[in-house]
Amino acid sequence: MPASPIRKLVPLGDDAKKRGTHVYHLNIGQPDIETPPEFYDAVRSYQEKVIAYGNSQGIRLFIESMQQYYDSLSIPLGYNDIVITTGGSEAIMFAMMAVAQPGDEILVFEPFYTNYNGFAIMSGITLVPVATQAEDGFHLPPAEEIARHITPRTRAMIICNPNNPTGTVLRDDELDAVRDIALRHDIFVLSDEVYREFVYEGRTKSVLEIDGLEQHAVVMDSLSKRYSLCGGRMGAVISRNRSFMDVMLRFGQARLCAATLEQIGSAALVAEGAKYFDGMISEYRQRRDATFDALQNIPGILCRKPSGAFYIMAQFPVDDIERFASWMLTDFSDGNETTMLAPGPGFYATPGRGMNEARLAYVLNAPECRRAVELVARGIEEYNSVNRKD
Amino acid sequence: MPASPIRKLVPLGDDAKKRGTHVYHLNIGQPDIETPPEFYDAVRSYQEKVIAYGNSQGIRLFIESMQQYYDSLSIPLGYNDIVITTGGSEAIMFAMMAVAQPGDEILVFEPFYTNYNGFAIMSGITLVPVATQAEDGFHLPPAEEIARHITPRTRAMIICNPNNPTGTVLRDDELDAVRDIALRHDIFVLSDEVYREFVYEGRTKSVLEIDGLEQHAVVMDSLSKRYSLCGGRMGAVISRNRSFMDVMLRFGQARLCAATLEQIGSAALVAEGAKYFDGMISEYRQRRDATFDALQNIPGILCRKPSGAFYIMAQFPVDDIERFASWMLTDFSDGNETTMLAPGPGFYATPGRGMNEARLAYVLNAPECRRAVELVARGIEEYNSVNRKD
Repeated sequence: MPASPIRKLVPLGDDAKKRGTHVYHLNIGQPDIETPPEFYDAVRSYQEKVIAYGNSQGIRLFIESMQQYYDSLSIPLGYNDIVITTGGSEAIMFAMMAVAQPGDEILVFEPFYTNYNGFAIMSGITLVPVATQAEDGFHLPPAEEIARHITPRTRAMIICNPNNPTGTVLRDDELDAVRDIALRHDIFVLSDEVYREFVYEGRTKSVLEIDGLEQHAVVMDSLSKRYSLCGGRMGAVISRNRSFMDVMLRFGQARLCAATLEQIGSAALVAEGAKYFDGMISEYRQRRDATFDALQNIPGILCRKPSGAFYIMAQFPVDDIERFASWMLTDFSDGNETTMLAPGPGFYATPGRGMNEARLAYVLNAPECRRAVELVARGIEEYNSVNRKD
Repeated sequence: MPASPIRKLVPLGDDAKKRGTHVYHLNIGQPDIETPPEFYDAVRSYQEKVIAYGNSQGIRLFIESMQQYYDSLSIPLGYNDIVITTGGSEAIMFAMMAVAQPGDEILVFEPFYTNYNGFAIMSGITLVPVATQAEDGFHLPPAEEIARHITPRTRAMIICNPNNPTGTVLRDDELDAVRDIALRHDIFVLSDEVYREFVYEGRTKSVLEIDGLEQHAVVMDSLSKRYSLCGGRMGAVISRNRSFMDVMLRFGQARLCAATLEQIGSAALVAEGAKYFDGMISEYRQRRDATFDALQNIPGILCRKPSGAFYIMAQFPVDDIERFASWMLTDFSDGNETTMLAPGPGFYATPGRGMNEARLAYVLNAPECRRAVELVARGIEEYNSVNRKD
């Protein structure tokens, strides 16, 4: 089981901090946006004397607020179409384990969110990577190319829309192709939509909105990014497929319930509707633009302006991104500051891919993003001059 | 995947409640004891503006308080011997998945905590049941009998001490036998010790205290019962085996972290030490005695007085415990009251076993336990007279 590329450099970062170096964290998708006060208020005013087991599906108040939220997106859901999970992580794990047995295969478009891999390894499922290319803006390959990877053991494909780590938002024609493949081969579409609100042009479409896909569509959702609630560990699995949801409920029973207090707080938050989203998205648009523009000024860096999420997957003019990213923490500093990146290879299943790519999470304010990228620029220059040895 | 025997009758119970019938819940191990105020105080005074991702291993304050707690049990642990989990459930799942691949086998002594089964099914692990008998007080069978179940695919045995559902506390000679088998066959001992404090005679011994077992002993722990914090979902995996703990940390990274607020609250709770335990245990001793004495008065009921946890596994003079337990909710009431039980078969992997057994959780105060058992007594009488059809 590989260490998380998002977290593996943390010990080196800790050492740098001990030396007094400030580290800009572009490695992890941890927003600095404040968690809305409704969450704290609801948690603090919880008056029950016992923090008791809750219903395995989730507490009613929270499920109903999620129904209202989806309703506001014009996605009507039944009460039993939702099972509350411990973060998007548990949603992903439950969904993967429900559709695939050990030895079964799930297609995943690489680069992909690295933790899919962890859950696959834990459960003996084989992830079959289907390549997407930086030059195509990491959009899906043609349907024939996707279908070429399907075998009798393929049970599902995972899409992440908007995408972590690429920031790509799928077009309607891509989602139509996904539907056609899913229906033709009778496989599930597991759609990671935790960045749904983070779209800077146009709008993203949920798999739950695709006609004809009702029995094949599964959404893995999370409140972490939407409400800056990463440490709350609140998510959900959503599907209109009855037998799939029966399995979700049984998995839910196996781990008894999700945490009570966070569900109370989350119910209050979600009931607030969209009021926090607009301000948050315009803030992230500024961050994206600041980060992207600063990257454009670095000779040899290649990336496209992402349409969604809060990541940029960029190609770096270095020999080995793992070595470079480590070196930034162990050997480099400028004005006693440096930047932590998430090296690309961890986002690929195919050995050798991503060797000169890194994911940058623009989760700091715009001036900090600019400074963090400036440090990357200086780092590249120094790293390459040191390593050139001429 | 089977529905949880602890929760499967809940819909029938809900229907009974809708009819105005009061239901005594002896089915689920949900204590009515108040969660100590230190938990609420710490959660309410948390001042960070962002509920951010925490360290995957757990937050330092909580891990250190767990070290102190184990130190107070004369079990010295290193900081990295502990990984905080989302409840004992995640601890069990992580531990099982770390030691066994799909198709591998883990021995489990039946009757056993039903959710081991859920995690085995989710991960393709085969649970191999080793029978224990009510007549032996559900103590372990002889070592030769245990060893007879070991194959080249056996990776571990699970013990639960004190035991859910039987209330049995393992003797030192049993633990020595467990150690000998584990060392001889080089398999892990996964020890579920969430009821550690709930011992009414003598003291229970942790696998972490067994000399020579350092590299094979894994404890799956939880704060749920100890601090009446079931809905907090706070647990831990503990081992001195370095490579096992490396896997724990990587599993931990795959799901990012446990919930922040509950860790803050739990750190404060655990730091209080043993101050809540004595009062709680004497309360539970009264409940055990009340429940056991009342059961002794029912003709045909067979059970032993349990030494630990808060469960009694009793044999019932009925034809089919599933049918009887359902009937208690659908057809029976006395003074508009009835009792919900957890039917025995769900605690067994071997088909046909447990058909006339049920688990009773004495988590209500003594008078309520007495009344709940009285209802069981009247229920048995009525059920058998209705079903005798003579």
